[in-house]
Amino acid sequence: METTKQQTEIEFRNYLKKMNSYRQAVGLLGWDSRTGAPKKGMIHRSEVIGTLSSELFQMSTSNEMANFLKELQQPEIFEGLSEVTKKSVEEMQKSYDKNMKIPKDEFKDFIVLRSKAENAWEEAKEKNDFSMFQPYLEKIVEFQKKFIGYRGYEGHPYNTLLDDYEPGVFVDTLDEVFGDLKEKLIPLVKGVTESKHQPKNDFLFAHFPKEKQRELSVAILKEIGFDFEAGRLDETVHPFAMGLNPGDVRVTTKYNESDFRVSLYGTIHEGGHALYEQNISEELVGTPLCGGTSMGIHESQSLFLEKFVGQNEKFLERNYSVIKKCSNGQFDDVTLEDFYFAVNEAKPSFIRIEADELTYCLHIILRYELEKALISGELEVKDLPDAWNDKMEEYLGIRPSHNGEGVLQDVHWSMGSFGYFPSYALGYIYAAQMKEEIIKDIPEYDELLLSGDNAKIRNWLTENVHKHGGMKKPAEIIKDITGGGINSEPLVNYLTEKYSRLYQL
Amino acid sequence: METTKQQTEIEFRNYLKKMNSYRQAVGLLGWDSRTGAPKKGMIHRSEVIGTLSSELFQMSTSNEMANFLKELQQPEIFEGLSEVTKKSVEEMQKSYDKNMKIPKDEFKDFIVLRSKAENAWEEAKEKNDFSMFQPYLEKIVEFQKKFIGYRGYEGHPYNTLLDDYEPGVFVDTLDEVFGDLKEKLIPLVKGVTESKHQPKNDFLFAHFPKEKQRELSVAILKEIGFDFEAGRLDETVHPFAMGLNPGDVRVTTKYNESDFRVSLYGTIHEGGHALYEQNISEELVGTPLCGGTSMGIHESQSLFLEKFVGQNEKFLERNYSVIKKCSNGQFDDVTLEDFYFAVNEAKPSFIRIEADELTYCLHIILRYELEKALISGELEVKDLPDAWNDKMEEYLGIRPSHNGEGVLQDVHWSMGSFGYFPSYALGYIYAAQMKEEIIKDIPEYDELLLSGDNAKIRNWLTENVHKHGGMKKPAEIIKDITGGGINSEPLVNYLTEKYSRLYQL
Repeated sequence: METTKQQTEIEFRNYLKKMNSYRQAVGLLGWDSRTGAPKKGMIHRSEVIGTLSSELFQMSTSNEMANFLKELQQPEIFEGLSEVTKKSVEEMQKSYDKNMKIPKDEFKDFIVLRSKAENAWEEAKEKNDFSMFQPYLEKIVEFQKKFIGYRGYEGHPYNTLLDDYEPGVFVDTLDEVFGDLKEKLIPLVKGVTESKHQPKNDFLFAHFPKEKQRELSVAILKEIGFDFEAGRLDETVHPFAMGLNPGDVRVTTKYNESDFRVSLYGTIHEGGHALYEQNISEELVGTPLCGGTSMGIHESQSLFLEKFVGQNEKFLERNYSVIKKCSNGQFDDVTLEDFYFAVNEAKPSFIRIEADELTYCLHIILRYELEKALISGELEVKDLPDAWNDKMEEYLGIRPSHNGEGVLQDVHWSMGSFGYFPSYALGYIYAAQMKEEIIKDIPEYDELLLSGDNAKIRNWLTENVHKHGGMKKPAEIIKDITGGGINSEPLVNYLTEKYSRLYQL
Repeated sequence: METTKQQTEIEFRNYLKKMNSYRQAVGLLGWDSRTGAPKKGMIHRSEVIGTLSSELFQMSTSNEMANFLKELQQPEIFEGLSEVTKKSVEEMQKSYDKNMKIPKDEFKDFIVLRSKAENAWEEAKEKNDFSMFQPYLEKIVEFQKKFIGYRGYEGHPYNTLLDDYEPGVFVDTLDEVFGDLKEKLIPLVKGVTESKHQPKNDFLFAHFPKEKQRELSVAILKEIGFDFEAGRLDETVHPFAMGLNPGDVRVTTKYNESDFRVSLYGTIHEGGHALYEQNISEELVGTPLCGGTSMGIHESQSLFLEKFVGQNEKFLERNYSVIKKCSNGQFDDVTLEDFYFAVNEAKPSFIRIEADELTYCLHIILRYELEKALISGELEVKDLPDAWNDKMEEYLGIRPSHNGEGVLQDVHWSMGSFGYFPSYALGYIYAAQMKEEIIKDIPEYDELLLSGDNAKIRNWLTENVHKHGGMKKPAEIIKDITGGGINSEPLVNYLTEKYSRLYQL
């Protein structure tokens, strides 16, 4: 009997390993498609990815999976399982439920709609014409509502969507946390905008050759502790980081010769994601737990590195010489102070992905509020552009002149991704909470960045975040670090202190 | 009824498409492993490749496959199938038979042995100690004999092995063709070796920076018509070309800064393989016919490009300026004649992969004769080193001083690949036969290479070889081109004429 139990656990883990092999293959195919696969092969590539992905989906909903889950969740068996297997069972049960509750035919229709909607969105964005996208978005919202109906919800229907990206985080928490944040940020942004003390920044846009930016990216990745024996750096149009397994984590970046910050901070940002993936405990390889535990926690790691390391004054002091060495001489007469102020410039802008750390969360809160209202039915799709523009004006003091720089700017909704945006702001909030705690454990934080001896900081992140992979949920990670819950105060304090100082408010 | 028949054909083709998707995924994983995948991820990579490969094997031997093959081969159904489906059925039946005839357990043991043997071979080669490898090779030969027993054979047991790489080519043909070739080559090599007229060649070994070699490789690939929108060039340790589909064909090369010929001719060689894969008819995509029809025909294309294009005097005349431009000035005082003679230098050497076109086939014939004798039982593994050295002396006039430069030099036998070597020599023979015919259709061949207008030559190869993929067997391709069979005379004539001229025999 004992042996049979153990045997089932072994078979289940082997089944998960097999699924993981498929996931790695699909990952590599995706990485390759986005980094240098020949154009003419792409038509066949989608077929390959489609075949393996649908195989993976079938494995997650197969009778075999159902039997494993049923058997392993019998109380007397479950308690004897290893912790990793227990969490894996829970994870697979959750995705099983989700995948089984939505009728396959309807999900297929949704997939087809998505792909049409993405095309429609692209054209609509190009022509700044929301009406071209509106009917598709209406259908997508309808599908989302229907799916929530199938899946059920507690409290607010939007909670079910949040659960896909940030399990354990609900609307009532977000309303409170985002509400506080908004209240504090709006006057701070206003102060910065109106300040007479603004940075010089022309040197940021001087020609910086691509090859030299690549050199700088490699140097900085090494500086932050990215392991090049367990990863690589490539060029792409839309940068991303991808962990196939902890020994193979791939960072991509984009080189803009008229604005080197795109690659420098893009690389550090993706490098932060990569450090997470490289330092997940080896024992989780081959399970669904071998990855970031949520979108928000993942984003906290990329933002921690980008904001609290990459934009830190001491880090820049240490690395200014290598930045100068790689450049064309444009920084030779620029003081460190001016450089630091310039790369930390903050001002309201229309486009989220170009926003600075001060204004970024307001872009997200706006989207969160609109999504929630669409899902609850308080807002109709046709009224979305005006609602967007009104909020932009209220939060950032600027009003888009057309929908291309407003409601049409992001791809997410056309892909049916609702509930995803909040993770970006949560990442900021989590990162600031971590920063507040790390300073207590490592008071010499700034000195370590100045000396380049970053291992202690990285190890702190590994111990508290990275190594756990999916073994701890987001709220658990935050609780274990801070002793409390999600809280926007550390972020508010950090931004208030930093930008009051920089802009002499 | 009609509809059912068509339905089965459609389902079979979809099944093949699915297999092809797996094959492309495995291909990409392999390419990635050999071109730049991070070292630390490799341990997990083998698991991913293993999972997908074994899935692919299972699909080729599944009940579903058996049913397809049975149903589609009913005479009244078979005759109604498209030509592509017919050939695909034949192809899959052949691999089904092969895979089913060998007991799965024994094949598994063989796989395990192979991997141990490869390690043993590596160590034996490093230490020049054949006795370390001997017991493994003995077992591999035993397995091969047993497998041939299961699979059956006609005429000579070695025919069954040949069939894996060069279907339709048998021992009696090879004995005749290789016999003729050997008889003519031995005295020619002797003449060249003893000639007083030898090329100057020091400039070949002058420093040639890697980046510049890469530039040259790209330029030359474009020159021979490689489509960079349907392929790419990367660096690797053991160069290869890989066609995932005709729109995605990847060439790899190796840069030796002290001998640029390694990359120049390596790239052209792999480029020849790539032209084959890029120009296979689109209608074969997603079937087992979308690839080279045999190892030998594939090699004929790489060798055609390498020898009859890349080493052609007119081609070099046209491209000497770009070679000079990419180099460090080492060719500035070297006449085209001297350069041409140097890159066509011929002399006996121990290592097959470093051999020139004149001596290469003798390396292969030696291996063919030894393999055949091992399989028939006329030769025992323990006597292999002496047999090898004796033949080296007889064919090339040199005797290895240790087994590392003799019997231990190639990886093939440790991988259980018997019957593979003859394809290399067949490639030379086929290529020379094609060259003889192409001159009749395109008498201005040399002028086209001089002007760079190579499309006509490439189209000839596409029409006669590339586009057919696996639709024509090797013998059929040769028959349709020459009206006859495999014949070493064109190769002998080419080599005799060229080397008598170069070495003033």
